[in-house]
Amino acid sequence: MFRLRLFIFLLVILLSISSNSQTDEKVIREIYTQSLTNGKSYDWLNHLSNQIGGRLSGSLNAEKAVKYTKEELDKLGLDKVWLQPVMVPKWVRGAKEFAYIETAPGKTTPVNICALGGAVATQALGLKANLVEVKNFEELASLGKDKIEGKIVFYNRPMQPHIISAFEAYGGCVNQRYSGAFEAAKYGAVGVIVRSMNLRLDNLPHTGSMTYGNLPINKRIPSAAISTNDAELLSSMLKLDKSIKFYFKQNCKQLKDVLSYNVVGEITGSEFPNEYIIVGGHLDSWDLGDGSHDDGAGVVQSMDVLRLLKASGIKPKRSIRVVLFMNEENGLRGGNKYAEVAKQKGENHVFALESDAGGFTPRGFSFDCNDASFNQVLSWKPLFKPYLIHYFERGASGADVGPLKNKTNVLAGLRPDSQRYFDHHHAANDTFEHVNKRELELGAATMTALVYLFDKYGVNPISNNKRIKK
Amino acid sequence: MFRLRLFIFLLVILLSISSNSQTDEKVIREIYTQSLTNGKSYDWLNHLSNQIGGRLSGSLNAEKAVKYTKEELDKLGLDKVWLQPVMVPKWVRGAKEFAYIETAPGKTTPVNICALGGAVATQALGLKANLVEVKNFEELASLGKDKIEGKIVFYNRPMQPHIISAFEAYGGCVNQRYSGAFEAAKYGAVGVIVRSMNLRLDNLPHTGSMTYGNLPINKRIPSAAISTNDAELLSSMLKLDKSIKFYFKQNCKQLKDVLSYNVVGEITGSEFPNEYIIVGGHLDSWDLGDGSHDDGAGVVQSMDVLRLLKASGIKPKRSIRVVLFMNEENGLRGGNKYAEVAKQKGENHVFALESDAGGFTPRGFSFDCNDASFNQVLSWKPLFKPYLIHYFERGASGADVGPLKNKTNVLAGLRPDSQRYFDHHHAANDTFEHVNKRELELGAATMTALVYLFDKYGVNPISNNKRIKK
Repeated sequence: MFRLRLFIFLLVILLSISSNSQTDEKVIREIYTQSLTNGKSYDWLNHLSNQIGGRLSGSLNAEKAVKYTKEELDKLGLDKVWLQPVMVPKWVRGAKEFAYIETAPGKTTPVNICALGGAVATQALGLKANLVEVKNFEELASLGKDKIEGKIVFYNRPMQPHIISAFEAYGGCVNQRYSGAFEAAKYGAVGVIVRSMNLRLDNLPHTGSMTYGNLPINKRIPSAAISTNDAELLSSMLKLDKSIKFYFKQNCKQLKDVLSYNVVGEITGSEFPNEYIIVGGHLDSWDLGDGSHDDGAGVVQSMDVLRLLKASGIKPKRSIRVVLFMNEENGLRGGNKYAEVAKQKGENHVFALESDAGGFTPRGFSFDCNDASFNQVLSWKPLFKPYLIHYFERGASGADVGPLKNKTNVLAGLRPDSQRYFDHHHAANDTFEHVNKRELELGAATMTALVYLFDKYGVNPISNNKRIKK
Repeated sequence: MFRLRLFIFLLVILLSISSNSQTDEKVIREIYTQSLTNGKSYDWLNHLSNQIGGRLSGSLNAEKAVKYTKEELDKLGLDKVWLQPVMVPKWVRGAKEFAYIETAPGKTTPVNICALGGAVATQALGLKANLVEVKNFEELASLGKDKIEGKIVFYNRPMQPHIISAFEAYGGCVNQRYSGAFEAAKYGAVGVIVRSMNLRLDNLPHTGSMTYGNLPINKRIPSAAISTNDAELLSSMLKLDKSIKFYFKQNCKQLKDVLSYNVVGEITGSEFPNEYIIVGGHLDSWDLGDGSHDDGAGVVQSMDVLRLLKASGIKPKRSIRVVLFMNEENGLRGGNKYAEVAKQKGENHVFALESDAGGFTPRGFSFDCNDASFNQVLSWKPLFKPYLIHYFERGASGADVGPLKNKTNVLAGLRPDSQRYFDHHHAANDTFEHVNKRELELGAATMTALVYLFDKYGVNPISNNKRIKK
């Protein structure tokens, strides 16, 4: 008798697992079909990129993007859509930068530079000085004040091509851009030129954020990125003649903080409304291109997650929010503000997913979570195989969702193919025509599928029964 | 004592497996590093695309490509490099095609078309007729001679966007292009217009091969591809008014077969020189673009496989050949010739790998082989994980290596990301700037790694010991 009961018990469990996974297969197939045949992400991106354009925090375009995305979310019939106020830094580039290499008085070769985000301007007449080329901060320190004072430091450590993940290669170089001026100023440098974070050789300078740390205002030195082709040129010219000079003029300025917004939309959960799942990207972008990959793609994919859930007939148990964060690029004020308000309100954020790695073919996700949750995720891997989604690894999630981290929740980042990303990142060619519609839509579907699974099964499935229903 | 012996025996096996796989890990890491830091594929492709251009069989450019690739292989210090003669068809496009939709006499809308490869020309003054739009051959048959005679058949079945593999979506539509004229001619159609095989909406017509089957010459009707945007336009205009006319003029011609060549290079095996492993792509391309993705990429990757083996310090046990096939696009004469000669000479081709799916980020391979060989391949899968190579499935290999198929050998095709491929396939935008250097190099490395493993372990590892050494 006991055996029969056990048999029946196990049979019921098995059938429920198998019917669950059949249902999941069907639902996920429907999500992908909806995204690939009736997706909205590409149209939204077209507007964001081509009707609005680059959206630097505090700019008129950033305001327009807030207004546009709010209006579009309003049309989706969500349960709530609102703006979350946040003060953001406002840095402006001013007139286009200008630079040249001077081999002798009157003999100059123009090069392509752009000011780094947060940098100070040169004096109105520009800055001209000799150069010291270094590969890293250790080399800088070993040269010391004697060799550096009064000079422009030229950081020229390239992204390493043998590294498979372009993001990892970026991680190995970006301290030159972020802290290069701060480090060089210690030794009396008068300016900083940084090789662009780009695996390709081309003529486009790539901007990005930098810091002066605790340097007083009068110690801050202008810093700019130079295109990879021009970095190669400059380096080879320096090898021939160390006495050549570099001239640059930039006109950027840090203004007072201004009021901006995160844009938030919500489908309120039917069973566990106090458990929040969020998907997001950042609404701000750099100003040189139109911010299509960074992070227009993440914004429109995140918006489409909520629309795709509805279009696929899914009624979430938990509250699902799309959050379009303001000011990821040069301050992270939006991400911090969202987490701060969530904490104040005691909102339990069980899962947060960010798309901020470009609109390329999705390969999977990286997860910042505990072992139990990661094992739960791995059990879903077969459901993604038909969509060639294979990458499920532990790792960083995303800058904006990072502040939501706690011991039990799951943070994740969409991981698209990374190979082309730094060809466009923070440069004038981060533009709409470099986003492929299908790749973007596959990303939106992949995100939606993961949100569906976390919504259905919860983040700590064992304690599901103990949860307070509404 | 027996136990001790067994223990030692197992220990030796374990150590050998583990040291083998450690060595394999190192060798494969070296192959990727070589390709990503000192790869030649991108430079070769630059020449093939930008100095030579589109390489239709029998054209001057195809001749130039034979000469160039032979010369480049000669520089690699291989054991042998030679040209394998093969007669190929020569079809020429002639003056650019011209087409419009006529809604009333004198009221015309120009549209973008191109003749399909192998098609006949229109009469010198062009062809004007009413249209019948169909989605497939069943619909064509149901309309019958009554409704079709004297008209232009417009095939307008789009590639299905919900299908994840773009190649599978292509497979579901390409019979319209290949057999459309043959089928329509049966019912007295005077011409054929086919929606381009393109998942994207744009203005570019995509050419490709077509057949008249056993139709006598006087029954052959002109057939052309129309851009997806123009197909949509034409279809919506037809919905409003079935009496609109379509005019097109094309000037293409099938000439006599001409002599051309497969280009072959070989590293002769040190232990099993009579076992051949080949890697290849096709040297010919369509004429509208420069054939960078189809199949310049496969050509230069295959060439680089042999160079990368040498650069990585690998001395192959088996004979490794690169074969650059002529005339894949409109005849497959090169692939057939190579297999025919191999058979004549009794060459044992144990493994053949083709790259003919674009120069995009590699995802893996599809294999046409028996169970034992497929299991062998699956045992190597972990070695590819660091390179995000995850796709190891059974399926078609490649058109050129197909004729080498036998019961024991392994045929394989490189499977790159497919999402962007049909944006460019056979169209004027299949050009160099759409190939990413790193993606191309990752493909070359991935192919080299698989060749290295098949060379090292053989295709039927159990019978390794029975092989005749030289």
